[in-house]
Parts: sequence; structure tokens; C-alpha cells
Amino acid sequence: MPYTMSAADVVAALRAREWSLATCESLTAGRLAATIADVPGASNVLRGGLITYATALKAELAGVDSALLAARGAVDPDVAQAMALGARRECSSDVAVALTGFAGPTGDQVGLVYIAIAHPGGTFWRRYDFSGSREQVRNQAVASALNMLLTLAREQNGTDTRYTG
Amino acid sequence: MPYTMSAADVVAALRAREWSLATCESLTAGRLAATIADVPGASNVLRGGLITYATALKAELAGVDSALLAARGAVDPDVAQAMALGARRECSSDVAVALTGFAGPTGDQVGLVYIAIAHPGGTFWRRYDFSGSREQVRNQAVASALNMLLTLAREQNGTDTRYTG
Repeated sequence: MPYTMSAADVVAALRAREWSLATCESLTAGRLAATIADVPGASNVLRGGLITYATALKAELAGVDSALLAARGAVDPDVAQAMALGARRECSSDVAVALTGFAGPTGDQVGLVYIAIAHPGGTFWRRYDFSGSREQVRNQAVASALNMLLTLAREQNGTDTRYTG
Repeated sequence: MPYTMSAADVVAALRAREWSLATCESLTAGRLAATIADVPGASNVLRGGLITYATALKAELAGVDSALLAARGAVDPDVAQAMALGARRECSSDVAVALTGFAGPTGDQVGLVYIAIAHPGGTFWRRYDFSGSREQVRNQAVASALNMLLTLAREQNGTDTRYTG
């Protein structure tokens, strides 16, 4: 596991804030949550998550608006934010992170990934354009989500200085 | 990924049956679903899943009876079967597999894992007593779930000759 160390940092930082965590994963299909659960003591922080691999499950499990999905498709910043809000609500967590993107191996926009976080102070998202294989795209998505969580949890006052959708 | 080959076999075998798949993972926390999604074309089979790491989420997300959870705890064959049935229902899949167990590193029953499958012909479960580290217990749980799925999907007639809870 190349990112067990940063997952441990995320668990420690969330625990220091007394924040619980949930996930909503599409292209990574559970790998982010599994990576966090690799950390002994993760159960102090990780509540669980939703794996919304099929587009329909983004609506059925996470409550993403079906009209939004139909209009924008599954790889969209507002969809990512709705997935994060849905996971936070369904899993009763303080923080939730959502990932949606094109892992490939085929398609025009392989490597395009949106990662959103819902937290007690609001929601925000980042767009990434990763390159590499299907495996590399998914690994970079997991690593980026961990970094976003770590940055958020280490902020002194939780004021949202990131751009939002 | 040591088990990408067997995950590819599972995807191919489920696809041959025209069966979609969902997961409900506790100790593996998404690793089984992520392993299946490592296979290109997994989206033909994998719908998604529930990560019910916290005990309360087994009731809240998968609909496991709270009284059953309170009486038996989270590591129990009937809880595993209820998790599988819940994932099958919530994710609208033909087949669902659930994993619950003690990954360690501490505790009296580390390595005890129940894996249950709900499929069009019914439900069944297996008990495993794995040894090794937290990482090894979780890896063996994923590999065993893949083997159970492969055996089921390759049966000629789907008649359930396994023991049930």
C-alpha cells in the first residue's frame, strides 16, 4: 500500500478534530475507504460509505438528483458535491468525500476526476486531470482525496478558503 | 493486486450468467469492490455497494435488524446474510456478497470472518478462521469472497447445495 502513511495521517488529523468520515466512491469503487481502513484504529474515524459505481446508484444510494445526472453525466463537480452530501447524510458522518471520474482504459476524457468534500462548514471540490493507466488514475484519485482530507482537517479554524462549485 | 486474475474470472462468470453484483463490506471496507473494479469492463457487472464499517451502518444502510445486531454482535452468520440481502435490495443487483469479521490487530477472535451471498436462488454463508496480520486476514477474506462468487456463478443450474444459516 503506497499511501498507508498518508491514510494514517488523515485518521490522526480527523480524530484530533473529532470528525467522523464517510465516502462515496465511483471510479475508485471502495479503494479510498479500504485504504483508510488499512490503518489500525481507523474505526475511531471511518463510519463507512457508498460505492456508487453504476450511475443509477448515485441517485438511488446517495440521493443525487436524477435530472442533474441526466443533464451533466456522472463526472461533474455538482454531482461530486451531491455525492458527498449524500454520503454525509446517509452515513451520519461529520465529513464525507466523494470521487467521480473517468478511469479508462477507453474514452475521450480518461483521467478527468472530480473530488468533493462535505464538512461541517460547507462543501468544496477540486478538478484533476490525471494521466496514466486505469490503475494509475485510480491511485492518483485516492492519493488526492487523502491530501484534500488532510488539508481540511489540519486547518486551524475550518474557514473555507477554497473555491466552490 | 495479487487477485486481479480471479477478479477477472468472477466478472466473466457473472457476465456469462447476466448477473449484476453488489457488495456489503465491513472488515474489508471496500477492498472487494475495488478489486473487482480493477478489471476493465467491470461496469458490465458491478453496480456498487455499501461499506458498513461502523456497526450502526449495518442497520442504517443495509437494513440489518438492530435487535439481531444487539443480540449477536456484528460478526455473525445471520448478520452476514442480512447484509447481503440488504445490499442486493438497496443496489438492485442479482447477486450480493457481504463480509463481516474481526481483522485485528487486537481482540480474542481475530481472523473469524463470515461471508454471505444472496442470489436469485436464495442465500448461503461460509465461516472462515484466518490467521495472520490484519492485512493478511483482509486479503484472505477478499480472496475467499471471490472464490465463493466464482463457484456460484459457474454452477450449471444454480441449485443451492451449500449449507445455509
